[in-house]
Amino acid sequence: MDFSDLVLDKGGVTPLYRQLTEQIKAAVAQGKLTEGTRLPAIRNLARALGVSPITVTQAYEALATEGIANGQVGRGTFILPRSHQTPVTTEPASKPSSEVAGWQNEITHYLKQPTRLAEISRLMQNAQARWNGEPEDFISLTSGSPTPELFPIARFHQALAQAGQSLQHESELLFQYGPPLGDPTTRNWLATYLHRFGFKADPDEILLTTGSQQALDLIARVFLGPGESILVESPTYPAALDIFEQRGIHWLPIPLDREGLQVEQLARLAERYHPKLLYTIPTAQSPTGQTLSPERRRRVAELSRRYNFLVVEDDTCNEFYYGSDSPAALKSYDSDGHILYIKSFSKLIFPTVRIGCIVASPFLLEKLAEAKQIFDRSTSLPLARAVFKHTSTTAFEREIKIMSTTYRTRRDAFLAALEEELTGTGCSWTYPEAGFSLLLTLPSGLNPAEVHQAAAGRGLGIMPGAVFYPIATEAPASLRLVFSDNPPPRLEEAARRLGQVLRELLRKRSLGRAASNFVAAV
Amino acid sequence: MDFSDLVLDKGGVTPLYRQLTEQIKAAVAQGKLTEGTRLPAIRNLARALGVSPITVTQAYEALATEGIANGQVGRGTFILPRSHQTPVTTEPASKPSSEVAGWQNEITHYLKQPTRLAEISRLMQNAQARWNGEPEDFISLTSGSPTPELFPIARFHQALAQAGQSLQHESELLFQYGPPLGDPTTRNWLATYLHRFGFKADPDEILLTTGSQQALDLIARVFLGPGESILVESPTYPAALDIFEQRGIHWLPIPLDREGLQVEQLARLAERYHPKLLYTIPTAQSPTGQTLSPERRRRVAELSRRYNFLVVEDDTCNEFYYGSDSPAALKSYDSDGHILYIKSFSKLIFPTVRIGCIVASPFLLEKLAEAKQIFDRSTSLPLARAVFKHTSTTAFEREIKIMSTTYRTRRDAFLAALEEELTGTGCSWTYPEAGFSLLLTLPSGLNPAEVHQAAAGRGLGIMPGAVFYPIATEAPASLRLVFSDNPPPRLEEAARRLGQVLRELLRKRSLGRAASNFVAAV
Repeated sequence: MDFSDLVLDKGGVTPLYRQLTEQIKAAVAQGKLTEGTRLPAIRNLARALGVSPITVTQAYEALATEGIANGQVGRGTFILPRSHQTPVTTEPASKPSSEVAGWQNEITHYLKQPTRLAEISRLMQNAQARWNGEPEDFISLTSGSPTPELFPIARFHQALAQAGQSLQHESELLFQYGPPLGDPTTRNWLATYLHRFGFKADPDEILLTTGSQQALDLIARVFLGPGESILVESPTYPAALDIFEQRGIHWLPIPLDREGLQVEQLARLAERYHPKLLYTIPTAQSPTGQTLSPERRRRVAELSRRYNFLVVEDDTCNEFYYGSDSPAALKSYDSDGHILYIKSFSKLIFPTVRIGCIVASPFLLEKLAEAKQIFDRSTSLPLARAVFKHTSTTAFEREIKIMSTTYRTRRDAFLAALEEELTGTGCSWTYPEAGFSLLLTLPSGLNPAEVHQAAAGRGLGIMPGAVFYPIATEAPASLRLVFSDNPPPRLEEAARRLGQVLRELLRKRSLGRAASNFVAAV
Repeated sequence: MDFSDLVLDKGGVTPLYRQLTEQIKAAVAQGKLTEGTRLPAIRNLARALGVSPITVTQAYEALATEGIANGQVGRGTFILPRSHQTPVTTEPASKPSSEVAGWQNEITHYLKQPTRLAEISRLMQNAQARWNGEPEDFISLTSGSPTPELFPIARFHQALAQAGQSLQHESELLFQYGPPLGDPTTRNWLATYLHRFGFKADPDEILLTTGSQQALDLIARVFLGPGESILVESPTYPAALDIFEQRGIHWLPIPLDREGLQVEQLARLAERYHPKLLYTIPTAQSPTGQTLSPERRRRVAELSRRYNFLVVEDDTCNEFYYGSDSPAALKSYDSDGHILYIKSFSKLIFPTVRIGCIVASPFLLEKLAEAKQIFDRSTSLPLARAVFKHTSTTAFEREIKIMSTTYRTRRDAFLAALEEELTGTGCSWTYPEAGFSLLLTLPSGLNPAEVHQAAAGRGLGIMPGAVFYPIATEAPASLRLVFSDNPPPRLEEAARRLGQVLRELLRKRSLGRAASNFVAAV
């Protein structure tokens, strides 16, 4: 890029530094400025533009804040790889500037936006808006949620009543803020429940949280700071990426192969970058549905000790493993406390129940419990007790089995339908041994956004893969397809519609190519 | 200070901006530069020192980061009051370094410790440990909690069962994460409930939270960043101070007089420092129990508009106002959305219920709701519904009246006992028109820590005032005394013990003085 192209409007209302920032951002967006390019020295650019060096300094700082460039004292300012860097949370994320008049526009806020969750919700709405048919004919494979018709609402009603009953016998003191770790009765039960995943937890190694989202947030707030590197599967769970991103961390994405997380790639990244933490979903990986082998689990645990990084094992979907026996949790390979284990009941009861937990060594858990106390005091006693009453029953075990069978049947129906309907399209997809979804890779030349739009027009909601990748621009052309919340006939119809859409787009593409070959020949 | 005194070593290894930063810091430390002094304009100082304006800009930024000075665009850079500044949270708060061996010691974490809550808990335990008598003879005035014997545990049992019942009739879709603001039924009811405090809230202006602590945390995370200034009553609620402190803010303490928050002092601070936010408890101020007059409320609202700062009105104890009619909430004077109103049910049901809310203008609430979604998804539907079922009854209104009468009776008994037992000690105390506690100022020469220890030895738990002040070192010699959770006879006994302790310490002090006078005379 030729920096003499930059033209600043010195009489304009937009501050000069802001104009400069925006023009450099535009150049990056247009590919005129690429990763690693060194920006001109502040004095030189100031002279060339006829502005104060302070203006250029401010612009470079704004670029750093927004994760576009990175100034290094004595070395210059360089363009960063696109979207590798999340801006640090301590800089105002943006000034609201749209619909509201007056003073509210001037208030700085510190949320990094847009989040992936907001982007997912936008894409879901967008797809539905493009459908002209009957709303009930629209099939959405986008939600990632458990299937509502299996929500045990009636039984949870009983659990609430039983919780109320059991609380009559407790000391009134428990109804003050209670112990920082949460209701002891519920933690005792959880310690027993978690045993099925292959490890023993002491009740004092369990911190109750309002769901796995708060568990992740507490871990991020306590242990992650701006510029620290974190290892994540690429792709992974977008709500976790949103949490980490708010802390201004640096991504170290680990690619997946047919068996999930590539542990040797993990070893190389750990060796090179000394990351602080690995976030992983070893069983029912989201969105691929893959499950890591015991050998790879052992290796991950070993690497965490060797390179001294924390591991956050997100295990919210372990109950929905469709093979004979799910491998023991990564936590079961933990010999000295590197692994923090997260559980949630969102998928086992319903999402808005809001109870989860973190299992960690006492030293780490103490920090997390103090954070919980500062930010939120404690987890609701009546709610925790209701979850205890609900889950410590044989009815719960039966429910989980029914859910698991239902989801497995849906997975099988969907895989068979994809096999049939997508033949010849050049697509490939992951084999979900567990969980709710799979990742489909598009044949070369097909654009996920284009497929998303065309599918929406045919009454099919699908999610482009980019939002599941820590670095969206590095995402392959892919789609996440959720099979958990539609019965087999609708999944089969969904596969049929997807096949039609893909074949149509491929036909157009080859016609276009033929036409341009023809033009070239003439 | 004469800035021409500054001498920079242009051939040195220390960067020029760093040299300048250190010299200004030294001048502040030596008292040559005092609070409120405006630093020279960047261009002028650069010219005077023969350095680039960038050097001066960098130095001023470093001073801002370290909490020494505060730059305001277009107004200049000012020296901040000493130790008003908390370090930014994005720097590791500490490295654990004590009992645990090995790698865990090396992990940086980002919690600022110790917190005031931890300090309060330590002092409470410390007091009990010093008591040699029967545990039940120890009287604690330290907790700040509602009184457990009035917890409506049996009735909350019914509410849980009724909530379960009412959820049977809801669409299953509500059991996914639900609307970001929380259960619509509960919000509709809250809008009606809040009407009694003198303002109308639309259900869409209400965000459900897990208690007022999360409400404060969301506000702090969205709207406060390092170096921003916040106005707080001095003294105030320590759990709120803990939250704000984690954000690395700059304190602007407002002293209280007999009628509470000094609004003209507020005006002066707002004029001078352009704060981002005021945190206030206008009714049942904690720990003083004071309640702000309608005139002062009107003035606070007016100042928030004039100087454009947000106001967080913490109104968790409004139901326990012991006069005839409590003044309308500050929120009722809000004409353009500057005031964010916080409510909690911790004191009206029991603390570990964990439901609260924020009322704010839609524009601000949208940001808070997005933060809630990122960090915690949503507030538990069954729990919110149980609180709705519990509070939307005449039984709840009766309970509140009984609680309020109980607390008023205790306040009256305690005030009368203090009047009787502390005569001649030189103590003064606030008159709590509402709430659970009062602040007692010790006579000159008595040290709160000494009183705390001596009282503990006599089986009395009291809390030194310093933890309630944003800047502990500026706290007057004071104690917080809680009257909510002991019946009148124990409060009277507590006052008696306190009187004995104080008289004893005063006697020792005057003996000591007499002795030293004697020595001096000899």
